[in-house]
Amino acid sequence: MTAEGAPRVERDGDVVRITLCRPKRRNALSREHLGQLLAAVTEVGHSDAAGIVLAAEGPVFSAGHDFTDVLDAPLPEVRSLLALCTELMETIQSVPQVVLARVHALATAAGCQLVASCDLAVAAESAGFAAPGGKGGWFCHTPMVAIARNVGRKRAMEMALTGDVVDARTALDWGLVNRVVPDGELDAAVDDLMGRAIRGSRASKAWGKQTMYAQLDRPERDAYATAIEVMAAASQIDGAREGMRSFLEKRPPVWTD
Amino acid sequence: MTAEGAPRVERDGDVVRITLCRPKRRNALSREHLGQLLAAVTEVGHSDAAGIVLAAEGPVFSAGHDFTDVLDAPLPEVRSLLALCTELMETIQSVPQVVLARVHALATAAGCQLVASCDLAVAAESAGFAAPGGKGGWFCHTPMVAIARNVGRKRAMEMALTGDVVDARTALDWGLVNRVVPDGELDAAVDDLMGRAIRGSRASKAWGKQTMYAQLDRPERDAYATAIEVMAAASQIDGAREGMRSFLEKRPPVWTD
Amino acid sequence: MTAEGAPRVERDGDVVRITLCRPKRRNALSREHLGQLLAAVTEVGHSDAAGIVLAAEGPVFSAGHDFTDVLDAPLPEVRSLLALCTELMETIQSVPQVVLARVHALATAAGCQLVASCDLAVAAESAGFAAPGGKGGWFCHTPMVAIARNVGRKRAMEMALTGDVVDARTALDWGLVNRVVPDGELDAAVDDLMGRAIRGSRASKAWGKQTMYAQLDRPERDAYATAIEVMAAASQIDGAREGMRSFLEKRPPVWTD
Repeated sequence: MTAEGAPRVERDGDVVRITLCRPKRRNALSREHLGQLLAAVTEVGHSDAAGIVLAAEGPVFSAGHDFTDVLDAPLPEVRSLLALCTELMETIQSVPQVVLARVHALATAAGCQLVASCDLAVAAESAGFAAPGGKGGWFCHTPMVAIARNVGRKRAMEMALTGDVVDARTALDWGLVNRVVPDGELDAAVDDLMGRAIRGSRASKAWGKQTMYAQLDRPERDAYATAIEVMAAASQIDGAREGMRSFLEKRPPVWTD
Repeated sequence: MTAEGAPRVERDGDVVRITLCRPKRRNALSREHLGQLLAAVTEVGHSDAAGIVLAAEGPVFSAGHDFTDVLDAPLPEVRSLLALCTELMETIQSVPQVVLARVHALATAAGCQLVASCDLAVAAESAGFAAPGGKGGWFCHTPMVAIARNVGRKRAMEMALTGDVVDARTALDWGLVNRVVPDGELDAAVDDLMGRAIRGSRASKAWGKQTMYAQLDRPERDAYATAIEVMAAASQIDGAREGMRSFLEKRPPVWTD
Repeated sequence: MTAEGAPRVERDGDVVRITLCRPKRRNALSREHLGQLLAAVTEVGHSDAAGIVLAAEGPVFSAGHDFTDVLDAPLPEVRSLLALCTELMETIQSVPQVVLARVHALATAAGCQLVASCDLAVAAESAGFAAPGGKGGWFCHTPMVAIARNVGRKRAMEMALTGDVVDARTALDWGLVNRVVPDGELDAAVDDLMGRAIRGSRASKAWGKQTMYAQLDRPERDAYATAIEVMAAASQIDGAREGMRSFLEKRPPVWTD
């Protein structure tokens, strides 16, 4: 499954780790790499895994788009590259698994967007986050869609306009990541949060994750209209009934889906 | 007014306290209880009270839905239960009074949604907040509509997916509550914040609260379109004129509405 | 250019400072003053300046609307005043320059809205922020459109309902401003942040700023649809090509637009 430089896909129990492994290219999200990542996430999405850890190796988590794909490329080619990148972000949100970014180092531009698009994120203290297009010549328009939905407006504008690196502690304070730990404790923190996030009925959780993204950013009344329908339907599945029955019978639940 | 287990409704000056008092049922929001709460909030909504404190007694603030209402219930019955629950949340936002949650203990699922739906919330240090459906079999789809509109996206996903309890200090940091105080100072803090929140013209404030919920979650331009119309109309009422006139005349205002 | 009490407009290198200078009127945003501010921002918007600092002199940053414009004014007149005020806020967001509020003192009502509407804001420690209409007779409907898009929901409701002053440190914690510094270091902090924010291709940044406001508050999928188109088109401009080429050639970029 691992072609030259393709993301490494490893399953450990219920969790699959997908690792960007083009350290010499700073894990740039080239068109080829985006395609491989999308294929990997999609394939795991169809499996019975409960969680996906998105990791990277080398000195940088990911530097975002590969400029050699973009420089001198005509507009339709750049559009299709950005559409592919967006498809990856949306697939991360639509797969039934919990997707957690394990950020050990600097994540910039579409690399930062990747972190912002995951359900959860755990960062090492030496990680950093930036949308550097704003201090260059190609503004981070699409990365900021994801980043601005994690941090407040003034903070999003600051990241977008200055391009400066936000350190891990500040990213935690702003809500871009869920945990920051010393570098040596990164895997333990990832395992702990993922373990908490994959408990319970998987069918129920998959539905839940999808409803979350469907209702966020919507006027509250529209969000309720969606959530009521899904939650009523979700009460009818085996997982819901087992959850409620086991609670009322004061026994541990047994999940079959 | 107090049937067996119905919420206790007590008026003290300008403020009405509505207290969930089914401690043995962990103040579960059964269909009956939801109906009683909705009736109580609606009735106070028609009164001349300026504020509503939503409180609870017993070891838990509220554990959310009563599973005995849901287990083995057909889909239309669950849908109508959730619609009733949503109607309570929307009524809390549409009544002219300032509604403040007094959270002395654990608030979970629809109980946490109740806190998230109030205009303001004051918590004791031993309070906690959770959307536990995600670690069970029935995901907290509708509670997360309200909770996600108070905290950031990554934090909402963490609460929804892990189901873990967020302590009061963290809830304050995330913006789910406005104040956290030692348990023994809870009522004083509630009184202080409510006292500040009900100052001024009531007609003006009631209009203001409703415009807030109408404009939040909307594109900024749409929000302005609504807010301009309401604010122009609101300049014509007695309260607005008295407020401006007293300011310009450097005297205390006298509110007649 | 400076009529009696009109905002002072001064250019220093790439940055224009626009200063409210009606200290005896607490820099109230009268209809005349709003018109002058709008004209000044619009004019600088058509210039080749890279940034705008919005400042004020005197003991108050700005007290918002001038009640003498509103008291006894008929509804259509108040509507047109609010529409003018909203046009100023929208113009601040649509001009190609980075707009940064330099807040040295109290900013209330439409004065606070002005801060909330700027791309960035730096505050002195003795600054404060409030939407006092809620404790008076004329609720801050339109100011809260901007303020609520910077801070969380419960915090917005608290500001709107209580009208209390939020100190500078709390405003930083809530995301209403980007920096808080001792009063004596305010200009240095403004210069530093503005300097960081205006680096890079101006054509690229102007487009970027506008896309940000177009995509915020929208469902994520709609936001991506906009951002993909703009980012693909933006890859074709000279600034983008120079940015990528200089990066790949490991040399400093030279911006011509």
